[in-house]
Amino acid sequence: MQQLIYWMNMKKIRAAVVGYGNIGKYVVEALESAADFEIAGIVRRASSLSAHGDDKYLVVSSLAELKDVDVAILCTPSRLVEKSAETALKLGIATVDSFDIHSGIADMRSRLDVIAKENNTAALISAGWDPGSDSVVRALLEVCAPQGITYTNFGPGMSMGHTVAVKAIEGVKAALSMTIPVGTGIHRRMVYVELEEGCEFAKVAEAIKNDPYFVHDETHVIQVESVEALKDMGHGVNLVRKGVSGKTQNQRFEFNMSIDNPGLTSQILVGGARAVLRQRPGCYTMIEIPVVDFLAGEREDIIRRLV
Amino acid sequence: MQQLIYWMNMKKIRAAVVGYGNIGKYVVEALESAADFEIAGIVRRASSLSAHGDDKYLVVSSLAELKDVDVAILCTPSRLVEKSAETALKLGIATVDSFDIHSGIADMRSRLDVIAKENNTAALISAGWDPGSDSVVRALLEVCAPQGITYTNFGPGMSMGHTVAVKAIEGVKAALSMTIPVGTGIHRRMVYVELEEGCEFAKVAEAIKNDPYFVHDETHVIQVESVEALKDMGHGVNLVRKGVSGKTQNQRFEFNMSIDNPGLTSQILVGGARAVLRQRPGCYTMIEIPVVDFLAGEREDIIRRLV
Repeated sequence: MQQLIYWMNMKKIRAAVVGYGNIGKYVVEALESAADFEIAGIVRRASSLSAHGDDKYLVVSSLAELKDVDVAILCTPSRLVEKSAETALKLGIATVDSFDIHSGIADMRSRLDVIAKENNTAALISAGWDPGSDSVVRALLEVCAPQGITYTNFGPGMSMGHTVAVKAIEGVKAALSMTIPVGTGIHRRMVYVELEEGCEFAKVAEAIKNDPYFVHDETHVIQVESVEALKDMGHGVNLVRKGVSGKTQNQRFEFNMSIDNPGLTSQILVGGARAVLRQRPGCYTMIEIPVVDFLAGEREDIIRRLV
Repeated sequence: MQQLIYWMNMKKIRAAVVGYGNIGKYVVEALESAADFEIAGIVRRASSLSAHGDDKYLVVSSLAELKDVDVAILCTPSRLVEKSAETALKLGIATVDSFDIHSGIADMRSRLDVIAKENNTAALISAGWDPGSDSVVRALLEVCAPQGITYTNFGPGMSMGHTVAVKAIEGVKAALSMTIPVGTGIHRRMVYVELEEGCEFAKVAEAIKNDPYFVHDETHVIQVESVEALKDMGHGVNLVRKGVSGKTQNQRFEFNMSIDNPGLTSQILVGGARAVLRQRPGCYTMIEIPVVDFLAGEREDIIRRLV
C-alpha cells in the first residue's frame, strides 16, 4: 500500500527517445514496462517522419519540439551520439547513450563534461552492456583482486562492426559475422555471406580474411543461400579474472550472460536515464555512478532487499 | 613515469586496523600491498596487547591513541562493529566494516548515518563479499533485468555462524559446518564433529539436526578424528538471475567465484577504506558508492582501461 501511494504521488520521469531504429523500439518497450517513466515523444530523422510508425506517441524531427523532457535516451548510431548529446545538453536536457567505441569514450566524456556543466545538466555515456554493465563488473573484480588478468570473451553473437566490414567488400550481397569466444579474450570469426551473381567465392573469402577487421583472428567464411535465415539477436559474455587479493593468490571470478542484445542494451539505457537525473552536473560513465541510482523505488527498500 | 610522480607526490591514506583476528591480519597484508596506504597502527583488546604480535606496527588498545588516522578498518566480530564504528566516527575518523548480519544492515545504516553526519565524516558498512561485492552484482543484475528471480548459492565453504551453533551443542569438542550449494538458493549442510569422550554420536547428531540453524536444511553429521585437518578458508558463490529486460524474456546472468574468504573480505575492506574517504558525510552500503571510487589511481586512467 505504502509502495502504491509512493508511485501514485511520484512525478513521472519524462523521457524522449532519440532515434527509432532497433534500439529505439526496444527502449520504448522498456519505458512502457517502467512505472516511473512516461514517454514525452520520439525524435526521428525528418526523412523518416512519414514512415509507418507508432501512433501511440508524438513523433517529431527535433528534440526541441517536445515539451518538458527530463532526459533524452539517445538511440542513434555511435558515430552520431556525441552530436545528439550536445543538442540535448544545450537544451538543458540530461542524456544517456550506449556509445560503444571503446577508444573514444574517455575523450568524449571530457568534451561532454564541459557542455553538461555549462548547461547545468548531466550526461551518462556508454551505458549499454559492453561498455556498460560489463565495465562495472570489470571494475568490481579489480576491487576484489587488484593484481591479475581479466579476459572478456564475447559471443556467440553477431558483431555489428565486423558485419558492416564484410558488406563493404566487393561481391558481397548480404553478410553476417558471428563472434565465437575461444577463451583468454581470443575470438574466432564465423562469416556467412550471400554473393552477388557471378562473383567468385574464393576471391571474396580471401578479401575478407585480409581485411583489417579479420586479419588477426581465425576467420572462416561460409557461403549461404540466405543470411537472413541465420540472424539471431542473441549474444553472450564470459568475463573471467584470476588474481591476487592482498597477498592471497588464485582468487577466481567469472561473469556469464546469455542475452538478447538490443533488449539488454535498451533496459540498461532506461536504468541509466533514471540514474543520470540523480547526478550532479557533468558527464559520467557507468562505473562512476552508484548502482543503486539505476534502480526504481526507495533506496532503503532496495538496501533491505539486495544488500 | 607520470604515474610514479603521481604516487610519490600523493599523501598516503593513514589507516588504522581495529581488531587483529583473522581478518585484521589479512587487512594488514592488503594494506602493505596497496601503494596509496600506510598503516597508522593496530588497535587490539587491552588483554591481547601483551600477546606475541608484529613489531612492525604500533599496537594500542584505543583508536584515540593513534595519530592522524584518516580511516579505521573495523575487523571486529559483527556484533561489535556498530560500537567500534561509533567510537571512530565520534573521533571524526571515517570507517569501513564487513558487518554481515543481513537483517541488521538497513537499521545500522540509519543509526550510523546520523552519527557520521554529526561528526562530518563517513561510514561504509557491510563491505565484504556478501553483503558487499555480491550485493553490487545483485543490484546490477536488477538493472539489467528488473523482473525475474535471483538465486545466491553459497559454497562450498565453511559457515562461521553454523559452526558456532554446532560448537554450542553439548558433547561437541570441535566442529566444522560446510555449506554446499544445491541450486536455487537451497543449501546442504555437511557437519563434521569431534566429540567429547563418552558422548553418544547419535544423540549429538540428532541435536544438531533439530537446531534452528539446521532444521530447515538437508543436514549430514559426520564424526571425525580431527576437525582441524579438514579446515580450509576457501569459499564460493554462484549467483544466478533469469529475468526480463523491457519486454524481452529469458535474459540469463551468472556470477561465480572461488576464493579465499578472509583474503577477499580484507581486500574489499581496503578498497572500501579508499572509497569512503571520497564520499560526503553519511553512512553508505557498497551499492550506494560508484565502483570507481574503490580503485587506486587516476579516474581517467581507470576509465580508459576498464570501461
